[in-house]
Amino acid sequence: MQSSSRGNKFLKLTNQHNYNFERAVDLTHELENGMPVYPGDPQPSFDRAKTIAKDGVNISDLKLGSHTGTHMDAPLHFVEGGTPVDRIPVSKLFGEALVLDLSYKPIGSGIEAKDLEKAEIHQDDIVLCYTGSSDRWGDPEVNSNFTYLTPEGARYLVSKKIRAVGIDFLSIEKFHSKSHDTHRELLSNGVFIIESLNKELKRFVGQRILFVCLPLRFKDGDGSPCRALGVPLT
Amino acid sequence: MQSSSRGNKFLKLTNQHNYNFERAVDLTHELENGMPVYPGDPQPSFDRAKTIAKDGVNISDLKLGSHTGTHMDAPLHFVEGGTPVDRIPVSKLFGEALVLDLSYKPIGSGIEAKDLEKAEIHQDDIVLCYTGSSDRWGDPEVNSNFTYLTPEGARYLVSKKIRAVGIDFLSIEKFHSKSHDTHRELLSNGVFIIESLNKELKRFVGQRILFVCLPLRFKDGDGSPCRALGVPLT
Repeated sequence: MQSSSRGNKFLKLTNQHNYNFERAVDLTHELENGMPVYPGDPQPSFDRAKTIAKDGVNISDLKLGSHTGTHMDAPLHFVEGGTPVDRIPVSKLFGEALVLDLSYKPIGSGIEAKDLEKAEIHQDDIVLCYTGSSDRWGDPEVNSNFTYLTPEGARYLVSKKIRAVGIDFLSIEKFHSKSHDTHRELLSNGVFIIESLNKELKRFVGQRILFVCLPLRFKDGDGSPCRALGVPLT
Repeated sequence: MQSSSRGNKFLKLTNQHNYNFERAVDLTHELENGMPVYPGDPQPSFDRAKTIAKDGVNISDLKLGSHTGTHMDAPLHFVEGGTPVDRIPVSKLFGEALVLDLSYKPIGSGIEAKDLEKAEIHQDDIVLCYTGSSDRWGDPEVNSNFTYLTPEGARYLVSKKIRAVGIDFLSIEKFHSKSHDTHRELLSNGVFIIESLNKELKRFVGQRILFVCLPLRFKDGDGSPCRALGVPLT
């Protein structure tokens, strides 16, 4: 799927390729009562405040954490004075993503630099990690033992000057890490993170796609639930 | 900006044009405490639940209505059994939009079919109405007296088989309409609505652009806050 004439800049790609939006794939989990959350996090709630039957209109009250469901971590999540989610330039929310197949690794293991070195990663790429954990979304056993990116793997991605990294489960960090070194390494270097992509990511393994991931525009937000879509190149 | 060779289908356009994502413009209001809401609606709240200073991490609690800030109305907002926001096909969330300049109309007046007939509107278009009300966002006087789409104007747009319609203030309907005929006309015909686009819409008047408007994926949602972006054609 990769163009041999591709340069390092996404802008070049937009001038070389078209995207088939008709074939966009939703990489976002549904937000609903009882949905899986990171163990210990509060449950979100989504309730109809007004109904057509009673009030002539449906309106809902939404209560959720900034890191619920498929979401984006802004640098401000872990970095004092870091970029908040509303200040990530909108041009950075559309980008070329390389989808890596890391599902050969046992669920619960750590992704290391040597797992990433095989891939041809370019500056400004978005790197999306399909680990297979997403095939067990909602499985309590996996909720506290999912595949993660090691701090050493994060340093490797930072050295490649990537734009962002995504993963298909609750966190990019080893479950209940005390020091959060993976988050810190990425976010302190301006690499934003997308967590809890759904299992549809599997469709794109080994491919380059257009990845569109739009968070809400929370002023000074540390992160936001987002809508994440993958668009194949034509 | 319009291609003379353009067909009726957006898919055709994607095969003819490129988009310059580097020049994407944010058409979304910031979500923050004290932001303007439709008079009578509850105020949203966005509060840090954990802070780096105290807890080593920033996490926020988000409480808001489904129609807060820049948002999308799904047919289920007013139509019993109508399409919920999570069932709007993702391919429909990217589309070619025609941005109409209706700012010649006095603030508080109604947009009628005769105001729309001058524009060359095609099947499956997204029609975005710049009324100028957005230049007075937060002005209490305009909050209850903004420019709106009349039910007769809505019928005209439905007759053109458009995909969606957007407007740059709190509602597409005359303030405190009892019968909500504009919403009903549009939503019962599957035309979804985007409300509270920001004043940046003015940049695009008279143009055709790529409009990307992604709501969150609320299961059975009547609507959702969204991130709305305009992308110029190259």
